[in-house]
Amino acid sequence: MRKTTTKLADGRELIYYDRDEAVLRDAPDRRPLEPAASLAEIRRDPVLGDWVTVAAHRQGRIYHPPADECPLCPSRDGRLSEIPAADYDVVVFENRFPSLATDAAAHVPGLDEPLHLGRPGVGRCEVVCYTSEHDASFAGLSEAKARLVLDAWTDRTAELSALPDVRQVFCFENRGVEIGVTLAHPHGQIYAFPFVTPRTGKMIEQADRHRAETGRNLFEDLLIAELADPVRVVAAGEYWTAFVPYAARWPYEVHLYPNRRVADLTELTEPERAEFPGLYLDLLGRFDRLFGEEAPPTPYIAAWHQAPHPGGAELALHLELFSIRRTVGKLKFLAGVESGMDAFVNDVSPEAAAQRLREVAP
Amino acid sequence: MRKTTTKLADGRELIYYDRDEAVLRDAPDRRPLEPAASLAEIRRDPVLGDWVTVAAHRQGRIYHPPADECPLCPSRDGRLSEIPAADYDVVVFENRFPSLATDAAAHVPGLDEPLHLGRPGVGRCEVVCYTSEHDASFAGLSEAKARLVLDAWTDRTAELSALPDVRQVFCFENRGVEIGVTLAHPHGQIYAFPFVTPRTGKMIEQADRHRAETGRNLFEDLLIAELADPVRVVAAGEYWTAFVPYAARWPYEVHLYPNRRVADLTELTEPERAEFPGLYLDLLGRFDRLFGEEAPPTPYIAAWHQAPHPGGAELALHLELFSIRRTVGKLKFLAGVESGMDAFVNDVSPEAAAQRLREVAP
Repeated sequence: MRKTTTKLADGRELIYYDRDEAVLRDAPDRRPLEPAASLAEIRRDPVLGDWVTVAAHRQGRIYHPPADECPLCPSRDGRLSEIPAADYDVVVFENRFPSLATDAAAHVPGLDEPLHLGRPGVGRCEVVCYTSEHDASFAGLSEAKARLVLDAWTDRTAELSALPDVRQVFCFENRGVEIGVTLAHPHGQIYAFPFVTPRTGKMIEQADRHRAETGRNLFEDLLIAELADPVRVVAAGEYWTAFVPYAARWPYEVHLYPNRRVADLTELTEPERAEFPGLYLDLLGRFDRLFGEEAPPTPYIAAWHQAPHPGGAELALHLELFSIRRTVGKLKFLAGVESGMDAFVNDVSPEAAAQRLREVAP
Repeated sequence: MRKTTTKLADGRELIYYDRDEAVLRDAPDRRPLEPAASLAEIRRDPVLGDWVTVAAHRQGRIYHPPADECPLCPSRDGRLSEIPAADYDVVVFENRFPSLATDAAAHVPGLDEPLHLGRPGVGRCEVVCYTSEHDASFAGLSEAKARLVLDAWTDRTAELSALPDVRQVFCFENRGVEIGVTLAHPHGQIYAFPFVTPRTGKMIEQADRHRAETGRNLFEDLLIAELADPVRVVAAGEYWTAFVPYAARWPYEVHLYPNRRVADLTELTEPERAEFPGLYLDLLGRFDRLFGEEAPPTPYIAAWHQAPHPGGAELALHLELFSIRRTVGKLKFLAGVESGMDAFVNDVSPEAAAQRLREVAP
């Protein structure tokens, strides 16, 4: 993999990841972009104890542009996009409308008392373009290309974790207009948070409790239990296992764990890295076949859970992949019970979901 | 208020709440309904510690029926609905497709080991019809009618709290197709949970910590702080205060607290009850005016937070009202950051939201 770090016209970083070691990446960004100021702030919810990000400058962000104005396509035919090159393999750049930014220090909203605790939204938000082909999808990538994406995620995790204020690096993909995706071009995102996210915080709390009670790691015990009675196991390789969680929140939800517990992507060995692309592409293919050949592509969220630092010693790297579609033409909405109380109701039994996901194997 | 408890053809309870003390409610349900079996179960997520409800039998529930087949309209013109009477004031009945049911004992899925802990989904799910007028909305109710709804919520809270397995009673309304509402007729729902919901559990944890650290109640201190610098206060009466929370998660979000802390609706005094309808209708009217006269009705979730029992001594009754609409034609989606990490990003500053909500006063 060849990595080339460049700057966009407004000073944001753009990084090319190429399989071709000889490629030269020197196309300049010719757009007349003004540096964008970030007014991002984080505020602590006094009633729940969680950090919430407030990013009012994001209201003006790009929203469903026509395909011929896609900002994630390469710059060509005289049209300038976010990517100066005329083609690319995988590219990562800082989001022009970031929820968190390294220079967010300008604005400090907090009253700095326990019930009104605010901070600048220091961190970083990146966009990961998986392919220069506008109409492609992650599921349609080659294994070699998916491996390049994995290597890019890994590099970003290492680099962003090293930033002074970053506690947790979150690589994810939102796919489908049903999820709220506003750019159709295949891409994912990375958030480098200055706090431990609420969900990760709860996981660590449970894992710490499990350690105190049993002396063992929660995630290792969980994988042993799922493999012992594989009614919810969907696919298994030599180094990875995919299963529907016992208390799945979403109609179709799969968690993919490396069999050997690691804290984050940077700790994966070469054999583990080599097996991942095939398994993940297999899972994405199953998701797209879940609702039959005629159904539109399955909307999904793919979320990498990585250990924060410090404080994440018990957390196990894993990928959570889930769809909000419960059947053709029907979505799972987060209404009063979920959004009001965080209490999920799932209309699909996890065992039935696993059965269906096994049926739609390639 | 006159309360008349009846049974539907399949044995479910239906309760009329009437302002007219003389009304007779004896219309029988003439539909040939089979008793519906509930396969509801609750499962404990071993990684997060939360209870998730699995209700696979709900997949077949009624979905966007045409207006002339609305199951929440009164039975008339030869058409039989869920409500046998030819007209009604406010009516509550057990959901035919409940996520939780008192007789859910048939199915015990749990392996009953720490990582696979399941229970029957014992509890109750009710539907609250606010008016017999199909095309009305809560915001359009009279104060007297809104008061009757408050009294019905209060009665249901008292009655459902007394059920042996119920820990928490949750009255709420989902409004708008954008929220996933499948029945257009104005209605809300009540869930009687056999567990403390995750969100409430976190609130209690924070409130207990605040008590340990300060000797005071978290919610009382919060109300004092918001009133001391009322930049986020939207409306205030003699007995209630409405403000946008400092760390609001949603583009437009208002929390309405009684000024005197109470555990749940049953503890409100007559003056507090008398003031509520006017204030709440005022807030709902503001929500509908937020996006201009031409915008379609504002989608919202209204969620009553009530203390669970046992264990809720520090929780303060309040209503959380929020919209997922961030601007005309644009919704706040819960994508990877929110659904994957429970980390919310809000594109509207809470102070700006409060300012806007004050501007659209009647």
